[in-house]
Amino acid sequence: MELFPIIPAGGILALLVALYMTSSVLKEDTGPKEMQTIAAAIREGAMAFLNRQYRTIAGLALIVAVLLALLTRQYHTAVAFITGAFASALSGYIGMYVAVNANLRVAAGARNSLNKALTVAFRGGAVTGLAVTALSLLGVTSLFYAFGGATNPTRAPLDIVGFGFGASFVALFAQLSGGIYTKAADVGADLVGKVEAGIPEDDPRNPAVIADLVGDNVGDCAGRGADLFESTAAENIGAMILGIALVPFFGVKGIVFPLVARAAGIIASIIGMFFVRAEENQDPMAALNRGYIVTSILAIIFLYPISRYMLSGPGVNFIYFYGAGIIGIVLSFIFVLITQYYTSYDYRPVKEIARASITGPATNIISGVAVGFESTALPVVFISLAILGAYWLGLKSGLPGGGLYGTAVATMGMLSTAAYILAMDTYGPITDNAGGIVEMSGAPEEVRRRTDRLDASGNTTKALTKGYAIGSAALATFLLFSAYIDEVKIALNIKGNFPVDIGKPEVFVGAFIAAMMVLLFSSTAIRAVGNAAQYVILEVRRQFKEIPGIMEGTAKPEYGACVDIVTRGALKEMVLPGLIVVITPIIVGLVLKAEAAAAFLMVGTITGVIVALFLNNGGGAWDNAKKYIELGNFGGKGSEAHKAGVVGDTVGDPFKDTAGPSLHVLVKLISTITLVLAGLFI
Amino acid sequence: MELFPIIPAGGILALLVALYMTSSVLKEDTGPKEMQTIAAAIREGAMAFLNRQYRTIAGLALIVAVLLALLTRQYHTAVAFITGAFASALSGYIGMYVAVNANLRVAAGARNSLNKALTVAFRGGAVTGLAVTALSLLGVTSLFYAFGGATNPTRAPLDIVGFGFGASFVALFAQLSGGIYTKAADVGADLVGKVEAGIPEDDPRNPAVIADLVGDNVGDCAGRGADLFESTAAENIGAMILGIALVPFFGVKGIVFPLVARAAGIIASIIGMFFVRAEENQDPMAALNRGYIVTSILAIIFLYPISRYMLSGPGVNFIYFYGAGIIGIVLSFIFVLITQYYTSYDYRPVKEIARASITGPATNIISGVAVGFESTALPVVFISLAILGAYWLGLKSGLPGGGLYGTAVATMGMLSTAAYILAMDTYGPITDNAGGIVEMSGAPEEVRRRTDRLDASGNTTKALTKGYAIGSAALATFLLFSAYIDEVKIALNIKGNFPVDIGKPEVFVGAFIAAMMVLLFSSTAIRAVGNAAQYVILEVRRQFKEIPGIMEGTAKPEYGACVDIVTRGALKEMVLPGLIVVITPIIVGLVLKAEAAAAFLMVGTITGVIVALFLNNGGGAWDNAKKYIELGNFGGKGSEAHKAGVVGDTVGDPFKDTAGPSLHVLVKLISTITLVLAGLFI
Repeated sequence: MELFPIIPAGGILALLVALYMTSSVLKEDTGPKEMQTIAAAIREGAMAFLNRQYRTIAGLALIVAVLLALLTRQYHTAVAFITGAFASALSGYIGMYVAVNANLRVAAGARNSLNKALTVAFRGGAVTGLAVTALSLLGVTSLFYAFGGATNPTRAPLDIVGFGFGASFVALFAQLSGGIYTKAADVGADLVGKVEAGIPEDDPRNPAVIADLVGDNVGDCAGRGADLFESTAAENIGAMILGIALVPFFGVKGIVFPLVARAAGIIASIIGMFFVRAEENQDPMAALNRGYIVTSILAIIFLYPISRYMLSGPGVNFIYFYGAGIIGIVLSFIFVLITQYYTSYDYRPVKEIARASITGPATNIISGVAVGFESTALPVVFISLAILGAYWLGLKSGLPGGGLYGTAVATMGMLSTAAYILAMDTYGPITDNAGGIVEMSGAPEEVRRRTDRLDASGNTTKALTKGYAIGSAALATFLLFSAYIDEVKIALNIKGNFPVDIGKPEVFVGAFIAAMMVLLFSSTAIRAVGNAAQYVILEVRRQFKEIPGIMEGTAKPEYGACVDIVTRGALKEMVLPGLIVVITPIIVGLVLKAEAAAAFLMVGTITGVIVALFLNNGGGAWDNAKKYIELGNFGGKGSEAHKAGVVGDTVGDPFKDTAGPSLHVLVKLISTITLVLAGLFI
Repeated sequence: MELFPIIPAGGILALLVALYMTSSVLKEDTGPKEMQTIAAAIREGAMAFLNRQYRTIAGLALIVAVLLALLTRQYHTAVAFITGAFASALSGYIGMYVAVNANLRVAAGARNSLNKALTVAFRGGAVTGLAVTALSLLGVTSLFYAFGGATNPTRAPLDIVGFGFGASFVALFAQLSGGIYTKAADVGADLVGKVEAGIPEDDPRNPAVIADLVGDNVGDCAGRGADLFESTAAENIGAMILGIALVPFFGVKGIVFPLVARAAGIIASIIGMFFVRAEENQDPMAALNRGYIVTSILAIIFLYPISRYMLSGPGVNFIYFYGAGIIGIVLSFIFVLITQYYTSYDYRPVKEIARASITGPATNIISGVAVGFESTALPVVFISLAILGAYWLGLKSGLPGGGLYGTAVATMGMLSTAAYILAMDTYGPITDNAGGIVEMSGAPEEVRRRTDRLDASGNTTKALTKGYAIGSAALATFLLFSAYIDEVKIALNIKGNFPVDIGKPEVFVGAFIAAMMVLLFSSTAIRAVGNAAQYVILEVRRQFKEIPGIMEGTAKPEYGACVDIVTRGALKEMVLPGLIVVITPIIVGLVLKAEAAAAFLMVGTITGVIVALFLNNGGGAWDNAKKYIELGNFGGKGSEAHKAGVVGDTVGDPFKDTAGPSLHVLVKLISTITLVLAGLFI
């Protein structure tokens, strides 16, 4: 087992690099006083939100942990749950801490050169990427060995599913409340500031402007970090469970293969990160893409010796599994391309929405819905091909029943670039914030142009990584679903097949309820934004009325009051959608039993992925249709088409930034819940 | 088998009553010359559309029939397909013929009294209700006996599935093209007429006004007629297939029970129809509801002797099946109530959308989407309870494996009021048209008030019957799905269980593709409306420009040119969405085989029902939110809220009148396709 040391080595190396990058970011120049004041306000608001959010979630998590201990009548699952929840929260905290310190340094760096600003922003993002993936890897590994993985490797993976559940539990609430926060602040700031008072975006006279900038951090940074933390955790564990069946062929190697592959992916990402560097006149995206391509190529190279060493056996040809892993890596590229096609204004869909805006907001909306619906087709086709292809390769490998493991390896392949992707993702809100700081501090035009370019690339990376996140969730659904079936088989001590018979009415009903739950959850999440935004609107109006001199710039608005109100609003509004997702699968499992829970899981993940694609891509397309009009097409800024474009953009906001990303988490949360509670559903 | 004569008796009686009502409608006064001219234009446009539509569909149907004959290598299915397609088209034709003649008589009758107008409108609707259900019943029955049902009753039901396929094939294209037509004309007329030229709705100066009125007929009348024709046909056949397994217990009675129950339901509906009569100051809805309640009570009464006589056997207590039937009848009431809650402005959801309109179109849309998503929850809960309840009753009956038949009886119960419901439904476009004729002919204020009241009740019935249609489709999904499994078992000669194992990748992929197909179909259907509307917009603009004197009322617009253009546009645009639905299940079945096709069927129906609920209820809620504002709430007509309400209403139009209703048909079409081709998927 000479490759095992790679696991801790990869994890610890990632943490060291993250530490190095943190200190290198913190050492940067913090710019003039005006910038520092604004950044401090954002930092305080974001950290205050995170603290209060974690206190709320900790309370909920403790209740769940106690219930888990009582229900499963053993401490493993509850301990794993708490560990997962804590590690998820910790990685969110680290990422956020660096992001809210990096934004100021990016703004300050933009006074010198584009490369300086870009490097600081990307390093800030890289800390999140590395911390999240390393903590997930180290957490799963430690628990695996703590629960006796060295002596009883076929039992330990089942004991650590709680880790995935804890991670998804925190992720759900983090993503939900972050998503609600960011859009409530955004909508509130826009409606009163831009529409009613007629002041531009990021104007310091708007009392909600700091809340808006805080929102970028808590929604995009902390939310997506928690999302990908649980992705990597849940999917590692799922693949390890599938590995149990392979012990007769590979020994423990089949079980720890996912961890080794993950560690190698982290190392590939670290190397790729050092390739991000931009000339003054270069497109920042080119620099980011270079790093991504290096990471992907390294991931493909590293996977070869690992598959060869770990997935060979008597009569088993590892090369087929290697092929399955490549399918996963290629699929992540394809997903990024499809997302780009549907959400960038270089292509037909966004242009179609922009053109429909000429005849007003109604046609803009209709066209956006049509594009969003349509955008689910290609991803499903490629996911299907990937699942079938990886399964087929797994069968060809010669390993009896190896098809399932083929899809697991493909998922590992897709997730091997996760650390890098997450770095690109967190880069987005950092540059966004830097732009806001530059704007509010009244920095010179030249600096603004630099941050604007960074911001534009940040919007692109945010959209692309959302595509990646849902793609990996979709590919993982089959893996997690199969892990659940395996777990039920182990619990029932079934050796052969455990067919879920969809001809039974309770199975059909379980499936029906799953699809409904996805829409009900989305409804409550979308509505939560509206509710929380109402608080902001009232507060901003109050300040405009009660504090004289705000509009003239002679008095400062009370930014803190707005931040406080959104914080409380978002945390209150996250409860209902969160409970729907946690309680529904439990009820279905307890009342309708294991087969119905399986159908629930299958249809819930399928519907969740599809609705998330619709919401994310539709929202992204509306956003860029507005930007396309603003570039001077169909009448440009101020035209009727532009007004319609703004409506579409606003509609898309809660779709793409609240409900859509929360559905990523939902898809995995229902998997981990059913995995953890499978024993009770029998 | 003394109850058998009920079947032809019920069918023929219904046709005779339909004939009597047709002649009684035609005998009515046709009013002044101005009304007659307008009505003639509508009639010609509608019939021209129907003729051209049927020619197009006939071509497509012929190709399918030939393919069917070649693929299944026997003539039964192809003959049944042609018969079903023809009967479906015929009933659409009859309904349309009466509707476009009734509208004028309603308008003329409104000059005398409300009761006169109401009676004529309802009788016009009743013709459709009776013709559709009678032709469906007689068609299935004749084919059953023609294919040897008297001598070989266990084979015949399988041979007549083609009838259901033919019916749904025609229904899909009829509903699609009708839905595209009606909304394209509506949107086109509104955008150029109301918005650009500033003339009111139904103004004779608008060149698209006749096309708009034609649209009400071809969309609502012909479309819904075809939809419910295939519902009753497909579900009868599905229940008959499930009855095959019961021959050892009930003999042939279990197979023909659905037909007898349907005949009794038709008789109940006929009696209920004669209870529709209104005083001058009464709410027309009260009159319509009275008839509905009488029909439902009679259906419950009639079902008792039928269940007792046909579903008793050694050790089998019929009373449980009777209970299952009552579940179905009660479920139809519940669905009507839920639809009312979500789409009427007396309740929270619509008021919420209206209130959200104050802050503009974006919040109106967000709120409407949230309401639409939410509105899927209660229907799914009640469908689930109904399926589980009916299944449980079926098991309790003492019949081995009787659970499935319990759900079949529940479906029969729900559909027993179909003829009456359809009469209420067709009443909608007739009153709508009558209102248009009254408006355009410049009739006195008093007459307008009467038709306005009728029109309002027509809008309500249209919304409610849409709820009923999707409810019965949802309940039937499980029945049709089970029939498919039964058919596969018969084809494979499996005696015991045929479990569909969702752990297989191809099954998972089949399910994934199904959910995606529903959204892709909706996308193309929604986009088709936009495309077809573009033709109308260009044509109306051309006429305004090229024909001097239109706006002054000195020159008549060329109504026919608009009608012609929408007709061609709708027929062209229906092809792509139609092909998606027909081809996808065939590819899934042929490539991924029978189990995957079963999962495809399950997830396709579930997603289809849920998305249809979202589109129908969301659209209906937007519509009435606008009306609620127009009543003077939140600023009333002309306010910002009203403008936002108009945007929501326009967005909802293709949702609720094109994509939503087409999904009803989709749900059943994929069932009948897989049923027909089951033999090839093995």
